[in-house]
Amino acid sequence: MNRKDIINQIKKKRSFLCIGLDVDVNKIPSHLLDLEDPVFEFNRQIIDSTKDLCVAYKPNLAFYEAMGIHGMNSLKRTLEYIPKDIFKIADAKRGDIGNTSNMYADAFFKQMNFDGLTVSPYMGSDSVLPFLDSKGKWVILLALTSNQGSLEFQTMKLDNGQYLYEKILTTSSQWGTDHNTMFVVGATRAEKLLEIRKIIPNHFLLVPGVGAQGGSLKDVANNAMNADCGILVNSSRGIIYAGNGQDFAQESRKKAQSIQIEMDKLLLDKSI
Amino acid sequence: MNRKDIINQIKKKRSFLCIGLDVDVNKIPSHLLDLEDPVFEFNRQIIDSTKDLCVAYKPNLAFYEAMGIHGMNSLKRTLEYIPKDIFKIADAKRGDIGNTSNMYADAFFKQMNFDGLTVSPYMGSDSVLPFLDSKGKWVILLALTSNQGSLEFQTMKLDNGQYLYEKILTTSSQWGTDHNTMFVVGATRAEKLLEIRKIIPNHFLLVPGVGAQGGSLKDVANNAMNADCGILVNSSRGIIYAGNGQDFAQESRKKAQSIQIEMDKLLLDKSI
Repeated sequence: MNRKDIINQIKKKRSFLCIGLDVDVNKIPSHLLDLEDPVFEFNRQIIDSTKDLCVAYKPNLAFYEAMGIHGMNSLKRTLEYIPKDIFKIADAKRGDIGNTSNMYADAFFKQMNFDGLTVSPYMGSDSVLPFLDSKGKWVILLALTSNQGSLEFQTMKLDNGQYLYEKILTTSSQWGTDHNTMFVVGATRAEKLLEIRKIIPNHFLLVPGVGAQGGSLKDVANNAMNADCGILVNSSRGIIYAGNGQDFAQESRKKAQSIQIEMDKLLLDKSI
Repeated sequence: MNRKDIINQIKKKRSFLCIGLDVDVNKIPSHLLDLEDPVFEFNRQIIDSTKDLCVAYKPNLAFYEAMGIHGMNSLKRTLEYIPKDIFKIADAKRGDIGNTSNMYADAFFKQMNFDGLTVSPYMGSDSVLPFLDSKGKWVILLALTSNQGSLEFQTMKLDNGQYLYEKILTTSSQWGTDHNTMFVVGATRAEKLLEIRKIIPNHFLLVPGVGAQGGSLKDVANNAMNADCGILVNSSRGIIYAGNGQDFAQESRKKAQSIQIEMDKLLLDKSI
């Protein structure tokens, strides 16, 4: 999926919402548990009820790996079920030496047909470049994450006066282009977004941390939106676990819709 | 597996060799390809021919994930086949926000029953602590990796004069103990090991990069060995692809044995 496809979808749906499919079998409605594949059935209903309101789905691999081979099967079925025009992000935070990153690129872009993959930049360019060789695919590099621990290393000052995450943005934005690279910046770090936009004005940002983690959608949009929108804002638990009964998917839709309505206004404010 | 078990095994086998089971189906002997599970059969024969010479096996997850569900099945069978007294490391370089790291801990320590897992420290303590809750399991944190790109961020100078990887060692060695935490330091960075030992004299180090990547076993041992040995040195491609015919497993054994003989001498030099 190319940049234009993403932007067109944002304009058409009036939304820059990414829904995190972080499915924990202990948290899904109990009436699904007797089915042959409860996790896929949960995802299927969530997708059916939200696909007109979001532009991306983002399964976090940890949740599927924790269920072993069954989990990976549920993920495979989920990916095949997501409509083709919706951006599919593997939240996997991978990254390894070159020949190994090549294998991960095969795993996520060929075997599983994801459109984008979150990657840790810590091992440097040769750990990331193999992912950039796949046409129409996106590398989404961790820059400043949403968790409290991000303040331990990512915001350390270097001897040149930059923060570590700023150095990572400055350097790694040169490895690819704004047509194949995005960056993760947590919504809980909205105050840093104005400075980040000075370093990477055009790149799309994937912004987790709205919802359960407490980030503000409005602050993120005000500080980070550019003329192409330029942000995908993720919510996982806040949407998928909005309800816990037979009507869980409708409850998820209500939650996603309230976010989409707010996003529509924020897009209008920027004349998008 | 606890620290004492690892040390006892090193003393008994006169070896601190870890063999990386990074199995690419395009590189294994062609006579295996007609079998029902060529990757498992390859691993089975490598394990049979090397299990008395090494103290750890380290499959890199990328190679198995690239083969989809079949690959994960081959990995599962491989793990069940490795003798119980040998340390099993998942080279997966995971790490995520707290609730997600919990799921990865389940995946690797419960579902797959690995003894250790490589983890990226970049997201901070709350991304790593969930892995330290599992009794008898080990977190192996990336400190200074073996690839060329490690010189881009990991060796940057901070405003306090430390290198980034030194700061990571100083901070993250406090999260756990030398009974549940190890660190990855590439053999290609042997010159840094003396300084690293000043920061973490007692922790075990997992040292990749000997063999195909060009690091020197002798330099690593001289600079990093402590009174408990304190290092696990990994070789992957150099051992598992030593031969390509019907006798590939014997060729692997020869290669592993030549390393084990060198390790025996290095242990004797340190009176271990």
